[in-house]
Amino acid sequence: MKAGPFQEYLVFAKALADHSGLILRRHFRQPMAVDDKSDHSPVTAIDREIETIFREKIAATYPHHGIIGEEFSPHNQNAEYVWVLDPIDGTAGFITGRPLFGTLIGLLRQGTAILGVIDHPITQERWAGMTGSGATFNNMPCRTRSCASLDRAMLYATSPHMFPQPDKAAFDILCRAVKWPQYGLDCYAYGLLASGMIDVVAESTMKPCDFLALAPVVEAAGGRISDWAGRPLDLNSDGRILAVGDAGLQAPILDILNDGAKT
Amino acid sequence: MKAGPFQEYLVFAKALADHSGLILRRHFRQPMAVDDKSDHSPVTAIDREIETIFREKIAATYPHHGIIGEEFSPHNQNAEYVWVLDPIDGTAGFITGRPLFGTLIGLLRQGTAILGVIDHPITQERWAGMTGSGATFNNMPCRTRSCASLDRAMLYATSPHMFPQPDKAAFDILCRAVKWPQYGLDCYAYGLLASGMIDVVAESTMKPCDFLALAPVVEAAGGRISDWAGRPLDLNSDGRILAVGDAGLQAPILDILNDGAKT
Repeated sequence: MKAGPFQEYLVFAKALADHSGLILRRHFRQPMAVDDKSDHSPVTAIDREIETIFREKIAATYPHHGIIGEEFSPHNQNAEYVWVLDPIDGTAGFITGRPLFGTLIGLLRQGTAILGVIDHPITQERWAGMTGSGATFNNMPCRTRSCASLDRAMLYATSPHMFPQPDKAAFDILCRAVKWPQYGLDCYAYGLLASGMIDVVAESTMKPCDFLALAPVVEAAGGRISDWAGRPLDLNSDGRILAVGDAGLQAPILDILNDGAKT
Repeated sequence: MKAGPFQEYLVFAKALADHSGLILRRHFRQPMAVDDKSDHSPVTAIDREIETIFREKIAATYPHHGIIGEEFSPHNQNAEYVWVLDPIDGTAGFITGRPLFGTLIGLLRQGTAILGVIDHPITQERWAGMTGSGATFNNMPCRTRSCASLDRAMLYATSPHMFPQPDKAAFDILCRAVKWPQYGLDCYAYGLLASGMIDVVAESTMKPCDFLALAPVVEAAGGRISDWAGRPLDLNSDGRILAVGDAGLQAPILDILNDGAKT
C-alpha cells in the first residue's frame, strides 16, 4: 500500500513523542523546580529540555522547516512546513502528579495544520491524525460519535478559570445547555472526543502551540474544530476553540457562544 | 511483626477492590446504558453490579457488619462495624472514558472511619490508610507534604458546579488565595494529597459514601480532613469537605470558607 504524502512526517512526529515520553516518565512525580511564565502559567526545566531536543532533531532532519514552540522563540516561521510544539500541555497537571497531561506535535503546511500527535506518556495513549487520512488511537482507527442533541452532549474544558469575560458568560450558558460539563483534561479531552467518548470541547485563551496539533486529529476522526466564529484554526486564531464530535452540534453551539460572548 | 487490630479488614477491603477492578477494566470505554439518579448524577448497571458483589461478600464474611452504599438502601447501619461503599466515584468520568475515577471502600467502627481504600483500576493505583497505621500508595508508605503558605498551595476540586451558594462564593475566594486551582479528579485528588503531590482539596455536596473512605487515608498520611467548620467527618456531616496535606493550612482555609459561606 502506498504511503500518503505526509506519512514520513507522521512517523517522524511519533518518534519525537517516543523520545519525550521517555523523559516525562522519568521525571513524573519527582521533585522539580517550577517557574512562573509571564502569563502566570507554570513551566519546568523538563518543558525546556524536551523542546530543545525536538528542535535539534527537526533541524537535523528537516533543516528547511520552521519551528514554533511553547518555550522558545519561533524559528523560520514562514517556511512551507512549520512544526508547532508543546512539550507539556497541562504542566499544572504534570507538576501535581496528574497523569493526563500530554505532548503536542503538529505540522503546518503553508499555514494549515496537516498532522497532529497528542501523546500521553504516563497512560501510554497516543492519538494521531493527518489530512486525507484517518485518525488513530494507539495506532488503531478511531472515530468521533454522533450526538443527537445538545442536551445529551458531554462537554469538557480544562478549567472554568481559562475564560475571560465575555467568554465566561458564553461558556456558562453552554454549560447549562449540555448534559454534563466536566473539567481538568487539557489535550486529553480532544483525544476522548476523537475516540467518540465525549461530544464537545470548548476552551478559550489557547495558544497556537496548544491547539494546532489538535485540529488534524479531531478533523481526521470525523469531528469539526474551529474558533468561536466557526473559522478554521491557524496561527492567527484568537484562542477561542470549539471542537465537536458530531458536525451537527457545531452550528447550535456557535450560536450560543456568539450570543453569549458579544462584547 | 504483629498485625494491627484492623489489618484483617484492610486485607478484605483490598480484596474487594481487586474484584471491582477486574469488572471496571472490562467495561471501561465499552458501550453502556447510563441512567440519571434523583440528584441528576449518572449511574450505570456496573455501579450496581459492583455494589451487589461487595454486599454479598461482606454478608458472607462479616454477617454482623452493617453496609451503607451509594446505590442501595442501608443495611444494619447501627452495627459496631459499618462498611461505606462507592463502587464508582466519578461515574461521569467513567462513562466518558476518563481513567481517573475510583472505587471507595471505607469501614466505620462505632461511627468513626477507621480504614479506607481508594482504588483506581485503570491506572492501577491504590491508596489505603488505617487508624493507628500509615497510609500507603500501591503498598508503599506515602506521606502528605508541607506547604509553607496558602499562596503556594495547589488546590483541587472535582467541579466548580458542585458548590451551591453560599459555598461557591467561599470556594471562589479560596481559589484566589491559592497558587493554582485545578479540577476534575474526584477521589484521585485525595490520593495525590496523601502522596504529597498537592496541598488542598475543598469540595461540597459530598455524600458519606464519597468522603468517609477518604478520611482514614488522608489522616494516616499525615494530613487533616474535616467539614468546613473543622469538625471530624461522620455519617451526619453536611458534605462540605476540606482536606489539607499540611495541618498548618487548615485554620487559614477554614477562616476563608466560613467567612465566605456565611448564610
